[in-house]
Amino acid sequence: MKSVVIASLVAGSLVLSAGMLLRDGSAKELAGGLGARVFVVERESGSLAIYDLEQRKLLPRRISGLGNLNHAVMTFSRDLKYGFLATRSGKLSRIDLENMSAAGEVYTSKNSIDIAVSQDGRFVAAAEYAPGGVTILDAKTLAVRKRLRTTVTRDGRTIDSRATGIVDVPGNRFACVLMEGAEVWIIDASRDDFPVEHRIPVTRDEPYDAMITPDGRYYVVGHIGSDQVSVIDLSWPQNGAKSVLLRDAGELYDRKTPVKLPHLAAWAVARDKVFVPLVGEARLAILDRWTWQYRGSVPLRGHPVYAIRSPHEREIWVSFSGEEDDAYLQAIDTETLEVKRTWRVGARIYHMDFTPRGSHALVSANKENKLFLIDTSTYEAVDEEAIDSPSGVFGVWRAFVIGL
Amino acid sequence: MKSVVIASLVAGSLVLSAGMLLRDGSAKELAGGLGARVFVVERESGSLAIYDLEQRKLLPRRISGLGNLNHAVMTFSRDLKYGFLATRSGKLSRIDLENMSAAGEVYTSKNSIDIAVSQDGRFVAAAEYAPGGVTILDAKTLAVRKRLRTTVTRDGRTIDSRATGIVDVPGNRFACVLMEGAEVWIIDASRDDFPVEHRIPVTRDEPYDAMITPDGRYYVVGHIGSDQVSVIDLSWPQNGAKSVLLRDAGELYDRKTPVKLPHLAAWAVARDKVFVPLVGEARLAILDRWTWQYRGSVPLRGHPVYAIRSPHEREIWVSFSGEEDDAYLQAIDTETLEVKRTWRVGARIYHMDFTPRGSHALVSANKENKLFLIDTSTYEAVDEEAIDSPSGVFGVWRAFVIGL
Repeated sequence: MKSVVIASLVAGSLVLSAGMLLRDGSAKELAGGLGARVFVVERESGSLAIYDLEQRKLLPRRISGLGNLNHAVMTFSRDLKYGFLATRSGKLSRIDLENMSAAGEVYTSKNSIDIAVSQDGRFVAAAEYAPGGVTILDAKTLAVRKRLRTTVTRDGRTIDSRATGIVDVPGNRFACVLMEGAEVWIIDASRDDFPVEHRIPVTRDEPYDAMITPDGRYYVVGHIGSDQVSVIDLSWPQNGAKSVLLRDAGELYDRKTPVKLPHLAAWAVARDKVFVPLVGEARLAILDRWTWQYRGSVPLRGHPVYAIRSPHEREIWVSFSGEEDDAYLQAIDTETLEVKRTWRVGARIYHMDFTPRGSHALVSANKENKLFLIDTSTYEAVDEEAIDSPSGVFGVWRAFVIGL
Repeated sequence: MKSVVIASLVAGSLVLSAGMLLRDGSAKELAGGLGARVFVVERESGSLAIYDLEQRKLLPRRISGLGNLNHAVMTFSRDLKYGFLATRSGKLSRIDLENMSAAGEVYTSKNSIDIAVSQDGRFVAAAEYAPGGVTILDAKTLAVRKRLRTTVTRDGRTIDSRATGIVDVPGNRFACVLMEGAEVWIIDASRDDFPVEHRIPVTRDEPYDAMITPDGRYYVVGHIGSDQVSVIDLSWPQNGAKSVLLRDAGELYDRKTPVKLPHLAAWAVARDKVFVPLVGEARLAILDRWTWQYRGSVPLRGHPVYAIRSPHEREIWVSFSGEEDDAYLQAIDTETLEVKRTWRVGARIYHMDFTPRGSHALVSANKENKLFLIDTSTYEAVDEEAIDSPSGVFGVWRAFVIGL
């Protein structure tokens, strides 16, 4: 009872293929409501599993053939028609959220890393490593609307810089960071020609990732091997980036070679503080949310990878790298700034997210091949599902959050 | 092509009627994605109009026969299957969000005022005036799971108190306030018998409404004719309520008889401040978000009714009461605390809401019989739709926000 429509509009690297189900409800009978769907990246097989939060079970349908999903992030259109994935193979895939099937793909580059939907919902932007640049697509047709090459001149040399950390910014802008170019670009997605409105230099230490605070106010860039980050106040981009130190000046800490480099998406903003998983240290640094001054740190059981805030902002949950620690989570109280709870979930935790009102959390344990649903009142798993090599966990509610 | 299934399970006051469309797509072809649907209360006719934010048009389908929609608030299930409305006629209506049709109704009281969905999505609670109480329903079956009578003893007398201001609270609780009883009740929705876990006295001035901060931390109760409100820190409900003054002690202001009593849902929390539309005064009071101390006020063009924060928290938009002012909005800068913009939208603005990432706002102008879509970058209406006597504006994304 499945009817597949393939529309091949081969134009450059553009290939559209729409897999659709007949309206006989065969897909729908399997599924609960659209708002309860959580997509889980199966990293090894390049596919997506779909978990139904309400029924507490995996849907029988999986979406395959999506390419290299290493570090893949899924974003959603604000009308909840589509999800979008950029892949390390350069393919941008669109997923139909109702039929839970692939609904178009475009090769925008040879290696893409990050993706964002514009605040008005009209455009999808991919940040790319090879060739370095940003490709902006029409979210409806998947037609390429703009290719921005992130080419910069440094000391007389022309560099094709990798681009990463692309996010939506208030005012219908996009922001991204140029890794070799050491610049943040603000792109105006409200104008037909998508001009680069601001080019903001950051320190020359190689930027490797970036994040935006949940209010869309600050864009923060991490630098490899540095204990400083660059912070841009997006209300005043013309004021440039300021350097922020992630430790007390002069103080020494026990720093090891990092097992895993935390991504800046792993920074958590709660109340008036920013919680930062430090690279190669068993601490969570605390910065002031408004001044960005270092306020101290919380000792942890291992090297932190991800820090996420609970929706009620009373707890930060932290995951770890390293075999001895990576099955555990720690919950930090955002007021006492102490570890409130340490508990084992499952081996090699890769990603986690709270449900929007905070009653539960979803945690993927990659080595254990499991997805866990945790009751946040008891910290106990109330459901677990077998998933092959699970990684990123993406609920459709991300459609409604700045920067996700 | 429409097939209506009526399942009449008459048991007490319970009547279930499910209006469903065949899966021929007739409803679906009319509509864009589920995430772009905004329900607009048509107050005079007791119906809901549906605006599609993506297509920028009203859907031809309207939902009628919902009862007295005066002060009606719509909440949504977290799986986006259903919307729920409590009405002044005591009827609780369930709306199927996919087919955009009525999908069950229950008479829980003779006069209901407020509604909330539990954080785990399993229960819907209505706060009721007559008889005073809270009714908790199973969100799936609409079966009554608990009837709590809000009966209290005061000075030896037994009072059936009206209940209002019901919201979801972290930990899968509900909170509501008893108007004659002058108590806040915290109800534990994670236990089968829904015990009243805390009964917290507030000052005896008659409470009339309440709100919860977007992080689910503080529950705030307004008192009629008073310039004090009661604030409960939900992390420490056992510490009781504290009284908060909405002005400088001793200072006098030009206070008039209020044309319209602002509801506490009209309080806006942004950055480290709470913005309060004062009753009968042309000012917006500013309180500290964490200490609740009075910090000052912003002079306005008229008596404020609604204050809403933009998702990026840089602006508060304010609507007004009184014929001279009620067609206007003012935008307040949350940092300079000054009026940034004053502009006319349409006569008798009743309600407004930002789209989740803040690119647009929806504003209903009741006297002008219009819904406006405003571009928040330019403050200009980019779409307007004729709607009969529009009032509340409810986007489905409310499903994912604490307290909505």
